[in-house]
Amino acid sequence: MGAGAGKTRRMPRAVRERQMLDAAVRTFARLGYRAASMDGIAELAGVSKPLVYLYLHSKEDLFTAVIRREARALVDAVRAGVEPSLPADAQLWAGLRAFFTHTAEHPDGWAVLHHQARTHGEPFAAEVAAMREEIVAFVTALIGAAAREAHGTPDLPARDVAGLAQALVGAAESLAGWANETEGVSAKEAAATLMNFAWAGLGNLMRGERWAAGR
Amino acid sequence: MGAGAGKTRRMPRAVRERQMLDAAVRTFARLGYRAASMDGIAELAGVSKPLVYLYLHSKEDLFTAVIRREARALVDAVRAGVEPSLPADAQLWAGLRAFFTHTAEHPDGWAVLHHQARTHGEPFAAEVAAMREEIVAFVTALIGAAAREAHGTPDLPARDVAGLAQALVGAAESLAGWANETEGVSAKEAAATLMNFAWAGLGNLMRGERWAAGR
Repeated sequence: MGAGAGKTRRMPRAVRERQMLDAAVRTFARLGYRAASMDGIAELAGVSKPLVYLYLHSKEDLFTAVIRREARALVDAVRAGVEPSLPADAQLWAGLRAFFTHTAEHPDGWAVLHHQARTHGEPFAAEVAAMREEIVAFVTALIGAAAREAHGTPDLPARDVAGLAQALVGAAESLAGWANETEGVSAKEAAATLMNFAWAGLGNLMRGERWAAGR
Repeated sequence: MGAGAGKTRRMPRAVRERQMLDAAVRTFARLGYRAASMDGIAELAGVSKPLVYLYLHSKEDLFTAVIRREARALVDAVRAGVEPSLPADAQLWAGLRAFFTHTAEHPDGWAVLHHQARTHGEPFAAEVAAMREEIVAFVTALIGAAAREAHGTPDLPARDVAGLAQALVGAAESLAGWANETEGVSAKEAAATLMNFAWAGLGNLMRGERWAAGR
């Protein structure tokens, strides 16, 4: 310890683990869960394969650890981006920018959460479902608050709010994948597209204006 | 043939195959791909297991056949619901009603497409991705036509239209799962929630009105 140099230098376990998880998220995102190998992940992390097994136990446990870390980072980024004292539309705009900025800066993490974690069955899909429920609850609270904020109209029924939150989260997931796969679409553009789509629509709903069928 | 009765009556291959696929979609949706067995599917279909293998070859081929049939049925239902001579908002409303009616009437088919087919890797995920691209292309054309229809404003840039189509399709996917899992949400309610969300927002965009940041 201390004066050692080069490959034999000892690092704290937390640093080693982070290196392994960084290598794993990149590998799982690009090769997929099945094709990813513990050998390849160890090599990319610059550690020995036995050390990966010692710390993370198995490919399944490593994949679960990656999903948990990336899900937590995404939810934290969205929460940190939102200032609860602002009006609801400003909160939504900040939340969308934080979401699309995070998914653009962590494309491998988003690919693991949105694609890989859902395409390899349980228990991985359940980890992502839990994260999604947390985001839906957050958006539901935001839309509910916006409805209460709006002057002169009754509250939106709870079921409408729940449906709108599901629509908004589904739209954001879909756009994040599209933005990452489409050359030259910035996080801010993706956020602005969804904000225009969502708020101009939500804004009318808040004022009690609905689209009229059969006009 | 003809006068035969009971179990030994011969049926056309197409009828037998439909029975097998009906049993398979139900089994895959409820048990998942891995837990589903060819024995169980044959029993539910009222045919022998060798006949299932003779017609559909393997569990993998059967799953692929189920995905293709359910994807085709969903796309056809949406296309059939839309009358191209109507104004764009009426077309969208008809398309959404057709989509949510079909997913509500075929919850097992939707569960296979949205959940099972994406949670068991390739080649199944690619089948669903192809269906999704067809629906996105359809919605993109619809939004583009609406933008051209709108008077007095320039066309929306193609990239905005593409982003809006991605947002709308993602919102519909998310709401369909929610509607099927939530007691008492009808297809028409789900379609109305999304129509209000989408069109009041899209309608403003068509008139060149955008949500203004920093109000």
